[in-house]
This record gives sequence, C-alpha cells and structure tokens, in this order.
Amino acid sequence: MARTILVLGAGKSTSYLLDYILKKSNVENLQLVIGDLHPEHISKEFSSHPNCNVISLDIFNDQQRKKVIAASSLVISMLPARLHIKIAEDCIYFKKHLVTASYVSKEIAALDGDAKKQGLIFLNEVGLDPGIDHMSAMEIIDRIRNNGGKMLLFESFTGGLVAPENDSNLWNYKFTWNPRNVVVAGQGGAAKFIQEGTYKYIPYQKLFRRTELVDIADYGTFEVYPNRDSLKYRDAYGLQNVLTLYRGTMRRVGFSKAWQMFVLLGLTDDSYTVENSEGMSYREFLNLFLPYSPTDSVELKLRHYLKIDQDDIRWGKLMELNLFDGTKKIPLKNATPAQMLQYILEDSWMLQEDEKDMIVMYHKFGYEIDGQKKQIDANMVVLGENRTYTAMAKTVGLPVAIAALQILNKEITSPGVQIPIKKEVYEPILSELKSYGIKFKEHQVPYLGYNPDSIAN
Amino acid sequence: MARTILVLGAGKSTSYLLDYILKKSNVENLQLVIGDLHPEHISKEFSSHPNCNVISLDIFNDQQRKKVIAASSLVISMLPARLHIKIAEDCIYFKKHLVTASYVSKEIAALDGDAKKQGLIFLNEVGLDPGIDHMSAMEIIDRIRNNGGKMLLFESFTGGLVAPENDSNLWNYKFTWNPRNVVVAGQGGAAKFIQEGTYKYIPYQKLFRRTELVDIADYGTFEVYPNRDSLKYRDAYGLQNVLTLYRGTMRRVGFSKAWQMFVLLGLTDDSYTVENSEGMSYREFLNLFLPYSPTDSVELKLRHYLKIDQDDIRWGKLMELNLFDGTKKIPLKNATPAQMLQYILEDSWMLQEDEKDMIVMYHKFGYEIDGQKKQIDANMVVLGENRTYTAMAKTVGLPVAIAALQILNKEITSPGVQIPIKKEVYEPILSELKSYGIKFKEHQVPYLGYNPDSIAN
Repeated sequence: MARTILVLGAGKSTSYLLDYILKKSNVENLQLVIGDLHPEHISKEFSSHPNCNVISLDIFNDQQRKKVIAASSLVISMLPARLHIKIAEDCIYFKKHLVTASYVSKEIAALDGDAKKQGLIFLNEVGLDPGIDHMSAMEIIDRIRNNGGKMLLFESFTGGLVAPENDSNLWNYKFTWNPRNVVVAGQGGAAKFIQEGTYKYIPYQKLFRRTELVDIADYGTFEVYPNRDSLKYRDAYGLQNVLTLYRGTMRRVGFSKAWQMFVLLGLTDDSYTVENSEGMSYREFLNLFLPYSPTDSVELKLRHYLKIDQDDIRWGKLMELNLFDGTKKIPLKNATPAQMLQYILEDSWMLQEDEKDMIVMYHKFGYEIDGQKKQIDANMVVLGENRTYTAMAKTVGLPVAIAALQILNKEITSPGVQIPIKKEVYEPILSELKSYGIKFKEHQVPYLGYNPDSIAN
Repeated sequence: MARTILVLGAGKSTSYLLDYILKKSNVENLQLVIGDLHPEHISKEFSSHPNCNVISLDIFNDQQRKKVIAASSLVISMLPARLHIKIAEDCIYFKKHLVTASYVSKEIAALDGDAKKQGLIFLNEVGLDPGIDHMSAMEIIDRIRNNGGKMLLFESFTGGLVAPENDSNLWNYKFTWNPRNVVVAGQGGAAKFIQEGTYKYIPYQKLFRRTELVDIADYGTFEVYPNRDSLKYRDAYGLQNVLTLYRGTMRRVGFSKAWQMFVLLGLTDDSYTVENSEGMSYREFLNLFLPYSPTDSVELKLRHYLKIDQDDIRWGKLMELNLFDGTKKIPLKNATPAQMLQYILEDSWMLQEDEKDMIVMYHKFGYEIDGQKKQIDANMVVLGENRTYTAMAKTVGLPVAIAALQILNKEITSPGVQIPIKKEVYEPILSELKSYGIKFKEHQVPYLGYNPDSIAN
C-alpha cells in the first residue's frame, strides 16, 4: 500500500520539497497530497503528476482538516508557525508523524510526552535556519568531542542574498524570502551574546553598527550583524561552558551601515500606523520623520540629520530607492512605517523571474585538544536556479523532504518533539543533501578566539 | 459636623497637600484622615495636628478600605495610578467625590455614567502635569476664543529641574521626582506631533536629538524634547483644526545630547535583565554594551563608539557620574540596564536635604484674529524650599487640595469623571494658586508659527 505524505501549505518555499517527493514517489511507493487554501496556485508540473492529489483545504475547517490528516501516513506543515498547533494536536490524535521547518513553540513542545507515548516523531526546525545550521554545527561539534576536544567558541552566521551574477544594485541585496522579516529584523529587544566569557548586549539602535566581517573563498567579504537569540541553543548544543557564542545574519559589506539610516529615521517601526498613509508619496513619507522646515529641501534635511557627506555611498543607496520621488505613491491604507518602507523596497528589490538567489552559511568552531587551541571554519554556499527554484526553497525544502522519507522508512526512529541535533537524525540527512550540492567546506585555521580586529565600526 | 477628607497614600509629593488641608481645617471645619501603609513615615508636624488622624491602611484589605471611605466626605488618592480603580468603585458605592493627580485610565473613564447618576465629581489630572498645564492652557485658549480668535498653534513644555542656586553638576540636572520615570522617558513608541499641518514622527533612537530651544526671562535657555502623546488632548482642548500641536519635556541645554549616549549604548533598556548584575562595577556595566576587545580600554572603546572628541563636554558628563569606576559596585540582583543606570545616576543626582528644585512650564498659543496672526507665550517658574517642601510637591499638591475643598464647598459642582478643563473648575483653582506664587507670566509676541530656526541638532 502506498504511503501518503500530506503537505499543508504549498507556498513558494515548497518547489524543491514537492519535486523531491514526486521524483521518489514511484520507487518509494509514495502518494503526495497537497492541501492548500489556493490550490489554483500550485504549479501544473506538480498537480498533473499521477502520484499527486491537490485539494482545497481551509485548515480552520476542523472536519476537513481532521479527515485529510487521518488519511495520511505523515504530515509536513509548511504553514506559518502559529498554525502548527492545531495540526500537531490532530497528529497526536490520529497517530501521525509531523515534520516542520519552524521553531518549536511552547505549545508544540508541550506535546512531547504525548508524542513519545504514541511513538510519534515530531521533527521541527529541519529547514535551513533553523535546520541545516543545527545539523551541520552538531556534526562538527560531535566530531570534535568524540576526538577528545573541548569546545571554546561557536559562531554561526546565515544569509539569504542575491547570487553574484544578479547582484546589480548598490545595496547588494534583493528580496529572496519574506520581505517583512527583513524590514523588522532585530526588533523586540536587545541582542545578547557571549564573547570570551563576557556577556554583551546591543540595543536595536546600534545593532547595525556592530558588524563583523567574514570572507568566503571565491565569494568575497560579507558582514554579520548579531541575532537577538545567540544563547538560544546553548543547552541544546551542550555549549554551557564555551567562552564565545554568537549567531548572526550575513549581508554584503555596507548594507548594515546604510540600513542604520532607516533605523535612525524610524522607518522600520511597526508599532503604530501613519495618519493618511494611503496615496502618500515616497518623499512625503520620508519627510514625516524629518524636522519641519519649509525653506529647506527634504534632501538637505536628511543629509544634515544623518550626517551624510557629498561623497557618501549611502546617498546613492537612498537615491536608488527613489526615496525622494514626489510622484511615486504608496497605496497602503492605515499602514505602519515598516509596511510603507517594505512597499518602497519591494519596488526596487524584487528578484526577477530569471534571477538567482544565494544562501551563505558560516560556522566557526574553536576548541582545545591535547593542550592546544584549534579552530575549524566551515562554510556553505548554495545558488538558486531562478525565482521559483531558489536556493532558499532548496535549502529549506530538501531537508524537510529527506527527513519525512527517512521517518517513513524508519531510518529516523526516536520519538518525541525534537530538533535535528541527534546524530541519528542529522547524519543521514546531511549525507543525502550532499548529493544535491548542499555541503560545507571545512578549513582548519589558527585559533584566534574572538578577533577584535574584525570589528567594523 | 466636620467634613472628613480622606487622603490615601502620603508619599513625598503630599507635604503641601496635607499642610493646606490642615491649615484650613479650623476655618473650614475639616477633619483630615491619612491612610497609608507606613503611617510611621508621616511627619509629626501633620500627625500631631488636632484635626488629623493617621491610620495604617492596606488598600488591598477590602473591609478596612471600604470602612474608611464610607466614613469620609471626599477621597483624595495620591496612590500609584493603577491602584485608583478599587477606590473609585468604592466611591461610587458609598457616594463619595474623588480627586486624583493621575491620568484618567480606561477603567476610571468607564465610571463616568455611574458618577453622573450619583451626582459625584471624579476630578483627575489636577496636579502639575497633568493638571496646571490643562488649567493654564485652557484659561488662555478660552480667552482667545471668547475674543473671536481662532487657534492655530499650541505648544506646551514642562520640566522638573534643580533650582539655579543648586544647579551644580555638568548635566544641570538632579532627581527631584521619580528617577525611574526619567530613565525610561520616551520609550514605548514613536513621538507623534503636528507642525504646520504636517504629522511628524520621531523614534526613540532620535528623540533626544530633536530638541527645540526656549528662553525664560531671568532663567536662561532650556531645551525641549517631544513627549510621545502630543495629540492626546487635541479633542479635549477643542484643537482639532490647529496646524501645530506639540508637547514636550524641558531640560537644561545639553542634557539631551548627553542622554543620547545612554540611549545609543542601550543603558536605558528596561525589557530584559542583565546576567550577574549583582556586584557588577560601574565600569563592567558600561563594558557590557561595548565591543569585546581586550587590548583596548573601556574609555577608548566608548569614545570611538560614540564619536566623542577630546574636547567634547559629554566626556566630562560621563566622568562626573563615575561610569568608568571599577571599584564602585551596583548591588542589584537580576536588574535591567535601566535599573542599573538609575542606581548609578542616583549616586550622583540625588537632591540634598537643603537643596531646592524648580518647576518650569512654557506654553505658546498661536491664533488668528481680525485677519491677523498673533501669539501669546506664557511661562511659569516655581522654586522649592528644600527636599521635603519641593516645587514639585507644591505644584502637584496644592491644586489637588484646592480642588478638594472647592468640591466640598460646592464651588465645583458638575458631576462625572473629568479633567480640569472647564472654566467652572480651572478658574477658582488658578485664582487661589496665584496667592501661593504659582502663576504665569504672559507675553504677546510676534507670530512665528513653528520656527525652524529653533531646531537644535
């Protein structure tokens, strides 16, 4: 009898996921059911496949949702994370395994006991970040420990960027994922991390001015700004005693310094709505945040306010976004500054149909072995094919798909709510990802500890 | 029969309030009951007065609270605003008038119908700010309107500062009120106001860099940074159509530019607790927010981070607070950065027993009359006597006391939940305040509208 994989939510991150399952469907005896609110958006390439069945599904319709979950062998939820809990509860009730690429919420974590009782695997955070970051880090950390090493330092950075061949604007950035996440990134509290045993805190107003630089051979230099949650996986990774623990987001050099202009102006604020936002020009929007002075131009007020000299490249970056244009209008009603900024950025930063994205990930592992301090740097670069088959969709979707099949094939067997940090889970997934070009290059480098020279300010 | 005024909560803002009631107690046939959790803190000067009765009262003890409220003629609550609702509900039940110096909460506002039904006056926001600001502004606005003028502009600024004779530190600032409010001032969302018909928004990260300057004869120049809530009283004051509406906080010039250092460092953040805060030195605290770099001093890292040149007075301001001292310790457990900063500031900025504080208030009223644009500026300065009889206690306590007596004497009669913006209310209170030296100087000045030249940046 065919095994039925139910995929809930088939947004743009799912191209590789669906493709993987359907390509394996004959050999592995799989049936794919895609449940989506808008089945008409699913590509014919998938919906016309003999082993694929697309159904119109409103996950708030309890009867319909329970019916399709009951009829499946395993559920993959690619829906927004807040919607997972209903599905997870059904999975407990109907005894189905569950795979997601989302962070484990408190509600999901609370199902661990029930899942174990039923022998069910609820595998979360098995996409890119979180996902490949966990697996690739734990593989090297476990190896260092098995060789008798003691971890001293762990730093990990990820970026979703545009491929070098399509890197054609002054910001060296295009939206390859959810633009909203980029606009509100870093908000909601100070970033917290540890460097050489010292806790460090950075408020939002300085976050984009505390970047580090990293190089990747053949791809040049990148900058990193810290995530809010660097200490989040300290216990999960067993790194309670490391001296340095830092997680960050990668951008091309200069992005953060320019983004800081938006932070200081207040354009990224998502906590209130602007009066009369609908129909406001880009120029009027910008002027909301500048002093009132009718005899001065918006341009000069901004230059003065942010201390932008004539030859500062940040000025070119603002011009490129048409921020001073008085004819371009924002059509959003009751919008927050963040929503209005997003509209303006999408106007310039959308990936074109034939353009390629790029995923970069960089880990540093400092450790001590036989009285000597050593360091391994590992990095991964994945390029997309086009706007549908993106590197993002590949690195998020493939590990999810691979994990699902390995669960069905009983290669992954430990039950419970979990993330992919156990060798039993990460080893076969990483191994198969390599055949898709998703792999890390490792370099043994001198141990520097946290290197003060790499601070860009 | 004597009328009994019940004062709940006799903190340091109540010296003039209690003094006023007791001085009038024989002539006006008043009994004062002070209910406080710590009656031992009440000065002998009050507690030994024949018309005063001090009782130990836990306002969470329903039975005891209801008993004292039932036995009173009018209740004044000087407790923290969040505690007013229990008292207000009792006042409805036992049919007692209520006076407070606090902002009207939604819960209190919802009692308006019940209060009117019972003929009860619930007068709130009748201290300094809110309080004297409402009354003094409405007196001039009503006068302009009665003369046929049309309001174009209203700006209003208030500051609680140190008196010139005791203004002895580089910040020109000492704590004369709740230090916590100073440390977290401006947080929680962008400041919003209107200048010449244009909405303006300032995020916290720029709030202290968008100051205006104002002069007060004999007292010199002050700076103003905008409050978050400039539009809050637009409807209450009937200013729906003015072109400029701006409310702000007054400081001595240079305070805000220096305070911005704390904002950028993240020292004012109250949203998380610092690891191992207890016993941390001032220097270690500062270093939490600076890049890790063991070969550089905290001093140089800070100078570089905030771009402080050798001859910048901000440096002197930091030194004066002993921020680089490695021996001075912060004894607070699980403290937020804001709490730790408050501890450090209190170490330097406490008012001494014989030092005087100063309240300054400044209003600008722009209007059009007979086709001409005109402007009235009005300002008030009140000096304290010492750390107990402060200008703050005087300007908060006297209007509350005066309002209470006028309600008892049926000079204020309109029932309902209200703030002092009706002529019936503000006129007699302002009139009596004058005899205590709390009065405004008015100047007819040329109408400038919002003056761009006054922007300090």
